[in-house]
Amino acid sequence: MVNLTPNPSYSLTLRVELPNRTGNLAAVAQAIANVGGSLGQISLIERTLKISKRELTVDASSTEHAEQIVAAVKAIPDVKVLKISDRTFDLHRQGKISIESRIPLASQSDLAMAYTPGVGRICKAIADEPEKVFSLTIKNNTVAIVTDGSAVLGLGNLGPEAALPVMEGKAMLFKEFAGVDAFPICLATQDTEAIIATVKNIAPVFGGVNLEDISAPRCFEVERRLREELDIPVFHDDQHGTAIVSLAALINALKFTAKSIEAVKIVINGAGAAGIAIAYLLKKAGAQDIWLCDSKGILSKKRDDLNPEKQVFAVEASGNLADAMKGADVFLGVSVPGVLTPEMVKTMAKDPIVFAMANPIPEIQPELIDSDVAVVATGRSDYPNQINNVLAFPGLFRGALDCRAKVLTDNMYLEAAKAIASLITPPSLARDNIVPSVFDSRVATAVASAVQFAARKDGVARQ
Amino acid sequence: MVNLTPNPSYSLTLRVELPNRTGNLAAVAQAIANVGGSLGQISLIERTLKISKRELTVDASSTEHAEQIVAAVKAIPDVKVLKISDRTFDLHRQGKISIESRIPLASQSDLAMAYTPGVGRICKAIADEPEKVFSLTIKNNTVAIVTDGSAVLGLGNLGPEAALPVMEGKAMLFKEFAGVDAFPICLATQDTEAIIATVKNIAPVFGGVNLEDISAPRCFEVERRLREELDIPVFHDDQHGTAIVSLAALINALKFTAKSIEAVKIVINGAGAAGIAIAYLLKKAGAQDIWLCDSKGILSKKRDDLNPEKQVFAVEASGNLADAMKGADVFLGVSVPGVLTPEMVKTMAKDPIVFAMANPIPEIQPELIDSDVAVVATGRSDYPNQINNVLAFPGLFRGALDCRAKVLTDNMYLEAAKAIASLITPPSLARDNIVPSVFDSRVATAVASAVQFAARKDGVARQ
Repeated sequence: MVNLTPNPSYSLTLRVELPNRTGNLAAVAQAIANVGGSLGQISLIERTLKISKRELTVDASSTEHAEQIVAAVKAIPDVKVLKISDRTFDLHRQGKISIESRIPLASQSDLAMAYTPGVGRICKAIADEPEKVFSLTIKNNTVAIVTDGSAVLGLGNLGPEAALPVMEGKAMLFKEFAGVDAFPICLATQDTEAIIATVKNIAPVFGGVNLEDISAPRCFEVERRLREELDIPVFHDDQHGTAIVSLAALINALKFTAKSIEAVKIVINGAGAAGIAIAYLLKKAGAQDIWLCDSKGILSKKRDDLNPEKQVFAVEASGNLADAMKGADVFLGVSVPGVLTPEMVKTMAKDPIVFAMANPIPEIQPELIDSDVAVVATGRSDYPNQINNVLAFPGLFRGALDCRAKVLTDNMYLEAAKAIASLITPPSLARDNIVPSVFDSRVATAVASAVQFAARKDGVARQ
Repeated sequence: MVNLTPNPSYSLTLRVELPNRTGNLAAVAQAIANVGGSLGQISLIERTLKISKRELTVDASSTEHAEQIVAAVKAIPDVKVLKISDRTFDLHRQGKISIESRIPLASQSDLAMAYTPGVGRICKAIADEPEKVFSLTIKNNTVAIVTDGSAVLGLGNLGPEAALPVMEGKAMLFKEFAGVDAFPICLATQDTEAIIATVKNIAPVFGGVNLEDISAPRCFEVERRLREELDIPVFHDDQHGTAIVSLAALINALKFTAKSIEAVKIVINGAGAAGIAIAYLLKKAGAQDIWLCDSKGILSKKRDDLNPEKQVFAVEASGNLADAMKGADVFLGVSVPGVLTPEMVKTMAKDPIVFAMANPIPEIQPELIDSDVAVVATGRSDYPNQINNVLAFPGLFRGALDCRAKVLTDNMYLEAAKAIASLITPPSLARDNIVPSVFDSRVATAVASAVQFAARKDGVARQ
């Protein structure tokens, strides 16, 4: 089992009935501990002379583990399990977002202003002056989260319906962290031209487009064309969001290890959307020694199976990931669970930096290399140093929407990364603190300001 | 000027400063009355020894009228107008709807369940059992409001951006009246095939599609094809919503005038989306003598310019609207402002019924024919007997979503109309009370129940 740590994604609520005698709750707690469950909230629901009912929250590390925990509790004499529910499933029922009115609709007069006949005046005003759509409609604050379901998290091509829970979660993050209204668009097509045509057709409502979980190399063409053919920001988060936050974390990890980006050897494992975008942004930030690997090994000039995007980063050397890792200062994983071994990490340069960002299960479990590296980071919310795109995309779109940017530029990405990194000040920079928490309320504001600044400098701001 | 009555769609907020002397407020009120403005809310903002500041809400009947009112107030000696704002425009700034999280996102544990890594388990569950998308995502309660902007209200082809305020208003109505989450999709294409392809491509997120403000005859093909090719309800509100509510109102108007639907002569003016759909539904409800007119007059078998949809309803007679109106019991207008004259109404049968539903300005102002008709109704919220689609579509989708209907059937429309009509009980049926208020909270529930009942009877409910 790769995933060792109990975590909230496999969290149960158990409702149990215990005889009202001393020591029964202790027995339940012990039974859960014996099988490695992590006990959270305990609520007393009811107590009579004879029994007590309690609701326990327990984190497990997998579905099988959750079943073991339930079995262990059921095995205690006199303890009844009244109800078992899976907290993650409970929370997803009926979906995670809703659409609400921003203004009351309680009287005929409200209706006459917000709907007919009053709304007709607003329609005419926009027809007369098209740019008014930005001030008089939701376009000013609304982003489409577009996916074709072809690369859902690290889980592969699950299709548009199965991708929807991720897009809903993303919409929650947009709102929570930057006040952006975002709506999921899950496409029933994986054809490049159909994706492009569909997004262009629905663009009038949106002030920006966040592409999400679209597999490489299709995502490159989709993004390139939409950037060219739409006049609103188009952002493939799996590429540039990951790149921005990786760079932010790397800036601080290098500061912590007193190395310079120009001097380090960087291995990027995974040459899909994220890997290629990270390589571009690191190069733009000054990196000079970047080795990309895909599932067949190093992107080498000797290989003849590389698509054009991969060819850009082909190096003279060849071999597998283990070969690439020898003497590397930095490992950036945007690939699949478990591909990095502790042995490979041992061959890295002094004070190595490992970012194992595969989601939901990293390239290597941090527990396995804690003592061998200077800094380790993952994409997970249940470990320190979470390299999470949520540090970038909300503030990035906040900034882009606020200045009505026509397009996003490399400088906007670079400035966003620097803004995120700058929030970890030298006294607080530490092995376990190279990026701000996603709950650090300064992040979105800092990113938004930096992005607006860069947009104005690059001449792409309309306001 | 066609539009005579001051109404909230041309509503102003005036902030005025008056010398603190007796009679000054009276002078302002009188000045506004003199030019026909309708004074609403008056708030005292500040009062000192010398002055008082008040905010006045004033309804006008047009933009020019609003300007007259402001000029009249400005002309009063010693009164200063500090600020003038247009309430309808104020209310539309930044748009009318927002997207909100249904669950909190305040801790790492929330994130780990609602987003990565926990969400991956939900994605896999849906990939394994596709029908779970209904229970674990927003699909169960979310409707796309789709327009191409080709027939925005009665204003014509204003395009997708100018249509957006209407679609936002519609989303508000869906939420307010039936708890349905609805999102505007305004298409940058008016090509039939492109509309169909785009809607099919974005369908995975939605539990239903409400087509809106798409011009005829394109709307017929779009709706027909989407009904066939999607497995969720597709509803063109301008057709069937209008038809359902028109029929509901007609059922009660006929009851009030003691006429039967089988016996009356009905003239429908406007042979676009709404007119054709009304004709179909009235026929289904038993009507036998229906005359449709378009801008060229009666749809006559003698004409050779009728599209296939119009040909279905062609009659032997020919002539213009005035000819059709002679001896008619019922006029249903879904056309353009001012086309019906008091003279034409005088040629109708005894106890005539006039539904002048053109939006925002009716075929005839009710004031002009009040004494000549048994019942008059409009589409406006500022007159009695408002024939408003909001009586139908929220409850219709509520019912369809709740039983996971695959499609909407004619019986569902008929039952919805009867349910609306049934809420006006015999003792309350009156000249000015043939349809329930849109704020009658029973409406959506009654419609939803009737629609579910019909869906189960027709075998189209999945749940």
